[in-house]
Amino acid sequence: MDAKFDFAKQLVYKAGQFIKSEMQNTFDVEEKSRFDDLVTSLDKKTQKLLIQEIIQHYPDDNILAEEDDVRSPIAQGNVWVLDPIDGTVNFIVQKDNFAVMLAYYEEGVGQFGIIYDVMADILYSGGGHFDVYANDKKIVPFQECPLERCLLGVNSAMYAENDCGIAHLASETLGVRIYGGAGISMAKVMQGKLLAYFSYIQPWDYAAAKIMGETLGFTLLTLDGEEPNYSTRQKVMFLPKSKLNLIQSYLTKK
Amino acid sequence: MDAKFDFAKQLVYKAGQFIKSEMQNTFDVEEKSRFDDLVTSLDKKTQKLLIQEIIQHYPDDNILAEEDDVRSPIAQGNVWVLDPIDGTVNFIVQKDNFAVMLAYYEEGVGQFGIIYDVMADILYSGGGHFDVYANDKKIVPFQECPLERCLLGVNSAMYAENDCGIAHLASETLGVRIYGGAGISMAKVMQGKLLAYFSYIQPWDYAAAKIMGETLGFTLLTLDGEEPNYSTRQKVMFLPKSKLNLIQSYLTKK
Repeated sequence: MDAKFDFAKQLVYKAGQFIKSEMQNTFDVEEKSRFDDLVTSLDKKTQKLLIQEIIQHYPDDNILAEEDDVRSPIAQGNVWVLDPIDGTVNFIVQKDNFAVMLAYYEEGVGQFGIIYDVMADILYSGGGHFDVYANDKKIVPFQECPLERCLLGVNSAMYAENDCGIAHLASETLGVRIYGGAGISMAKVMQGKLLAYFSYIQPWDYAAAKIMGETLGFTLLTLDGEEPNYSTRQKVMFLPKSKLNLIQSYLTKK
Repeated sequence: MDAKFDFAKQLVYKAGQFIKSEMQNTFDVEEKSRFDDLVTSLDKKTQKLLIQEIIQHYPDDNILAEEDDVRSPIAQGNVWVLDPIDGTVNFIVQKDNFAVMLAYYEEGVGQFGIIYDVMADILYSGGGHFDVYANDKKIVPFQECPLERCLLGVNSAMYAENDCGIAHLASETLGVRIYGGAGISMAKVMQGKLLAYFSYIQPWDYAAAKIMGETLGFTLLTLDGEEPNYSTRQKVMFLPKSKLNLIQSYLTKK
C-alpha cells in the first residue's frame, strides 16, 4: 500500500502541475445541466491524464470519476475515485480555490485520500493506515470547541433555504463560510478552520475527505445520518464524530 | 505623499508581523454587542501600535479607528482610517483570512489605501496618485465579464434574507462566496475573483478598498447608490462602475 500511496501523491502533483501550466492558455468552457453547471476542456484532459497513469500502473483497478460517465461501483475490487478539478467555477472565475482529488478503495473500504489545493500548493494526504498530512505537517485530530466559537462551511442554496435546519444550526455558531469547493472546504474542516461542512455532492466530491477525516475524528454521513451511497448526488455532512448527536439535534428531518 | 505612502506600507507590514508573532501565544477574546461580535486583546494592542507610530511621525494628523471609539470625522484635515484586524472571527477561529487595513484621507479625499492579507503575505496598496499593486504585481483595472460568468461576495445575513434583492441578483450569477472579512473579500473584487461585494459594514472596513478600487474602475456606494457617510455602519456595495446600472436594476429599494 505504501507504493500505491506514493504513486497516488506523485500523480496528483503531476495533475496539479498540468493544470497550472495549461490554465495560462485559453480553454473551452461548456455548460452541462444548466448555465451554472460548468465543465472545461481542462477538467476532461486532467481526468484523462489521471486515468491513463492509473491504468498503466494498475491495469486491474477500476475507476469512479466525475467526467465522461466513468462509474465503477465502489464495493467491487480496487477502485480509484477521482475529481480532476473540484471547484470548477472557482477555477474558471478565480483561477484559484480549486483542488485535484483522488481516493483509493478496496472492496468498499477506504485506503487513503488526497486533496491537492493547487494554487496554495498544499497537498492533504493520508487516512486508512496512514497519518494525515498537509504537505509535511501532520494534522492533529479534531479538538473540542463549543458551537458558539465555530464556523460552518455550507452549500449556498442549502443555507439560504434553511434546508434541513442548517441556517438554524448556523445561528448557534459564529456563522457560515462559502468557499465554493467541497475539497478546499473539507480540508478546512480537517484543520479546525470550519467545524463542519454541509453540501449536496457526488462521490468524487467526498471520497478523499471521508477517508482522511475518519483518521482525524470526523465522519461523513448523509443528512439523515446514513453512510453515503457512492453512486448518486446526496446531501451530506462532514463533521466531528463527537459532535454528531449535538448537530443532529439541530437538523430537522425532511 | 510618496514618503507618507512608504511609511504607511512599512507600518502595516510591521503590524502584520506583530500579529503573526503574538498569535502564537494565548490572547483574550471578549464579546462586544453579542456572542458573535468579538474583539481580542490583539486587535486592541495592534491598534495601539498603529496609532502610536502614526502620531509619532505625523503628530497633527487625526485617526478614525475600530476599537476604543477613536472617531475623527473624515472631512477635516489629515485622517488615517484603520482596522487593526479585519475579519476578527476568522482570526480567532481560523488564524487565517484576516487583514490589517489602513487608509489615508486629506479633507475627505482618499490619498491611498492598504489591505494586508497577513497569512497569505499579500499587501494590496495604492489608489489616489498611486497605481494599485498586490505585492510587486500591478493590478489591472476591471475587465468586463457577463453576470452569468461571475461570482458575488456577500454578507451571509443579507444573502439569506434576500436583503435588497441580493439573492435575486445572485441567481443571475454563478453564485456567492462568503469569506468572512471585508478586506479579503474586496481584495478579491479588485483582482476580478469576485464581481462585487455586498455587506453591512463600518468606515474602517471600506475606506482602504474604496480608494484603491476607484483607481481600478470600481466604486463603493451604499445600496441606495449614495456615497457612504464614514460615520455609521451602512449597507454598502463595492462593484465595477460600468456594472452599476445593471446591478442596481436587480436591487429592490427598501
